[in-house]
Amino acid sequence: MKTIYFSSYIRFSNSAMMSSKLKNTKRIEGLDSNVWVEFTDLSADPTVVNLGQGFPDIPPPSYVKEELVKAMAVDKMNQYTRCFGHPSLVEALSKVYGKVCNQKIDPYKQILVTVGAYGSLFNATQGLIEEGDEVIIIEPSYDCYVPMVKMAGATPVFIPLRIKSNVGSPTSSGDWTLNPDELASKFNSRTKAIILNTPNNPVGKIYTRDELEVIADLCIKHDVVCISDEVYEWLVYTGNKHIKIATLPGMWERTITIGSAGKTFSVTGWKLGWSIGPQHLIKHLQIVQQNCVYACATLLQEALAQAFLKDFKRMGDPECYFNSLSRELEVKRDRMANLLQEVGLKPLIPEGGYFIIADVSSLNVDLSDMKENESYDYRFVKWMIKTKKLAAIPLTAFCGPGTRAQFEKFVRFCFIKQDSTLDAAEKILKSWSKQKS
Amino acid sequence: MKTIYFSSYIRFSNSAMMSSKLKNTKRIEGLDSNVWVEFTDLSADPTVVNLGQGFPDIPPPSYVKEELVKAMAVDKMNQYTRCFGHPSLVEALSKVYGKVCNQKIDPYKQILVTVGAYGSLFNATQGLIEEGDEVIIIEPSYDCYVPMVKMAGATPVFIPLRIKSNVGSPTSSGDWTLNPDELASKFNSRTKAIILNTPNNPVGKIYTRDELEVIADLCIKHDVVCISDEVYEWLVYTGNKHIKIATLPGMWERTITIGSAGKTFSVTGWKLGWSIGPQHLIKHLQIVQQNCVYACATLLQEALAQAFLKDFKRMGDPECYFNSLSRELEVKRDRMANLLQEVGLKPLIPEGGYFIIADVSSLNVDLSDMKENESYDYRFVKWMIKTKKLAAIPLTAFCGPGTRAQFEKFVRFCFIKQDSTLDAAEKILKSWSKQKS
Repeated sequence: MKTIYFSSYIRFSNSAMMSSKLKNTKRIEGLDSNVWVEFTDLSADPTVVNLGQGFPDIPPPSYVKEELVKAMAVDKMNQYTRCFGHPSLVEALSKVYGKVCNQKIDPYKQILVTVGAYGSLFNATQGLIEEGDEVIIIEPSYDCYVPMVKMAGATPVFIPLRIKSNVGSPTSSGDWTLNPDELASKFNSRTKAIILNTPNNPVGKIYTRDELEVIADLCIKHDVVCISDEVYEWLVYTGNKHIKIATLPGMWERTITIGSAGKTFSVTGWKLGWSIGPQHLIKHLQIVQQNCVYACATLLQEALAQAFLKDFKRMGDPECYFNSLSRELEVKRDRMANLLQEVGLKPLIPEGGYFIIADVSSLNVDLSDMKENESYDYRFVKWMIKTKKLAAIPLTAFCGPGTRAQFEKFVRFCFIKQDSTLDAAEKILKSWSKQKS
Repeated sequence: MKTIYFSSYIRFSNSAMMSSKLKNTKRIEGLDSNVWVEFTDLSADPTVVNLGQGFPDIPPPSYVKEELVKAMAVDKMNQYTRCFGHPSLVEALSKVYGKVCNQKIDPYKQILVTVGAYGSLFNATQGLIEEGDEVIIIEPSYDCYVPMVKMAGATPVFIPLRIKSNVGSPTSSGDWTLNPDELASKFNSRTKAIILNTPNNPVGKIYTRDELEVIADLCIKHDVVCISDEVYEWLVYTGNKHIKIATLPGMWERTITIGSAGKTFSVTGWKLGWSIGPQHLIKHLQIVQQNCVYACATLLQEALAQAFLKDFKRMGDPECYFNSLSRELEVKRDRMANLLQEVGLKPLIPEGGYFIIADVSSLNVDLSDMKENESYDYRFVKWMIKTKKLAAIPLTAFCGPGTRAQFEKFVRFCFIKQDSTLDAAEKILKSWSKQKS
């Protein structure tokens, strides 16, 4: 049954009858564009090879699926569970993160399970950020930080990652860093929070201990909360180490650390995430949760809990998924980097996460047919989807207006993909490269 | 591994270091208490027979579970889907509700899938209700309406259901109604919306066409949006008919109609709901969704879509779950009503939904041991859980301060329970009744 709607009639009727009251509410004014909504639509064509949105097309580990089958066999798993997190899941999270952080974590008071890490970010901004506050955001940043901060009525204060002074042309995500003086200049009495993302999306940067200490010192000095998005925490490549800023002295009590089932177990569609932190912060996020979605899906939480317990028991072992996935992905990262280089792009090797960004300006693509009022990377990606049937994400989707010029020559490719998907991407890129030469 | 936390240390450290900035944000001030959080904890003791929170302990239909198994076999069902609703689910919803409403419904522009009906209510209040607005709430009302309206910065304006003038002592949910003049007096230029709930929770009232017309006329006259929570839409008992206010003349374009997978298919733990309405309203809810949780669990949406399609094909038939569940529940309702009457309570027979309320004051229970500063029904239910191991929900959980006195003699029992659960409740009530006599 195809549905047709007489939208012009309704639009007329709307404007005639409800013009005065049915504008957007102020809190969501200007927040209607969304890169995922736009590019998911553009990439929906099944002939497009999609290295855009960050989801795995590799299957989740078999035991994760098996645990879901087991959970489904229990009827009560189809009914409501605890608002702040299914008991077995918060218990499992407290074990895993207790070990990671080397401290006791109260499963009921210091953990909140949310609708994805996205839900954690929302609960944190709504629960902690007040109208008129300032929130420091490091660019490029995951695209929802800015609208969420704005929806809370606060002002985002931007600071870009900059190429290190001793680096000519950057080749690794580690070549980008924060300038400590510039960062310090962003803090003032109105600063309520800083949003950190390590390993970072889209660049793949993993902050070093030294870098985290600079941030921590400023947070403590200015009494600022750190919202630390660590969804890629396990995806760390050789030579790098992920450090939780919450484990630095004085930081536990002012940090919300956010994790993701989607990134941890390659199940982005389960939409489960969590916030961990001191009770005096978590309790505010809990109040948002109980007035927003109330609880998360019971079945999925139960299966996730059992999956975590399995990997908790083998946390040091190479076959633990926390360790094995990054080994599997490092091969894909290197393959993708070589491929991009071969066709004349300049990739930045990521230290973590599952994205690789590349400077595409050297290709000198003729974009004169594309919409003039969009930035270079948007026009490039739309052209690439249309002409080459290959999807990526433009980097300025992760930037505010002040830094677009700095990043608009880059696009982001996702490499947590089956070899067959990467083969298809390789075929496209190589034939493109041949056409050029 | 048991977790212990040195909360007194942290509390000291908190107050010493972060006193100035870490209060609740204003938008959630005073919204920390929640009847479900409180009574789920109180009823957690497995020896308590729980007729409190509204979830089925009957299993969901077998084909619903089978559809989930089928969805799980497809790896990509573990990954992200469309922000505003999984395509197969919005298509299925447009078919079912297109038939119910006898009009075409655009699956992509007029439907939003949310984290439960709760998520729909949140998206509607955040997307449509502005700071300073007034929102009319009919009491007793589902408990999240008031905090959600407050979180949107608006003022709830209450109107209670009142016993009809020609009724002495009420025996049916239909004996309660709105006084049209009193309702009219609540509308003014600041009124943005009214929240309707039919079939109503906790009373079980189903609004008649005449009653809905009074509401509709006022909405049209004052250019007001109707947020219509119809999660119990299929649970309608003999002699009653559920009418969607959106189908009344002039109402489609100003109504958000909210439904629930949890109530439709007895899977409250799946946390899936939906909003249906004109694009000019739904688009605002979509913006909230994309900045709040982004999307819902893919697997569960796919299984739900297939379950809906199955019942769509047999919508007129008695075996369609939309029809068969209410027949099954009507037997339980009548059993529960008789039982409550036998032990000396005065139940109100609900026209719809899966709750029955009863006046408990005639039992003259001695509550002198219970907290003095709580209302009668809270003290009664806490006493009943503690002493009789039977859980229910106090009715004033659904009332604002102005109408507590009117409803504090009532408690709410949930009857979507297996016969064995109702047997256990019967045993408790009958032995209690014997002790009294």
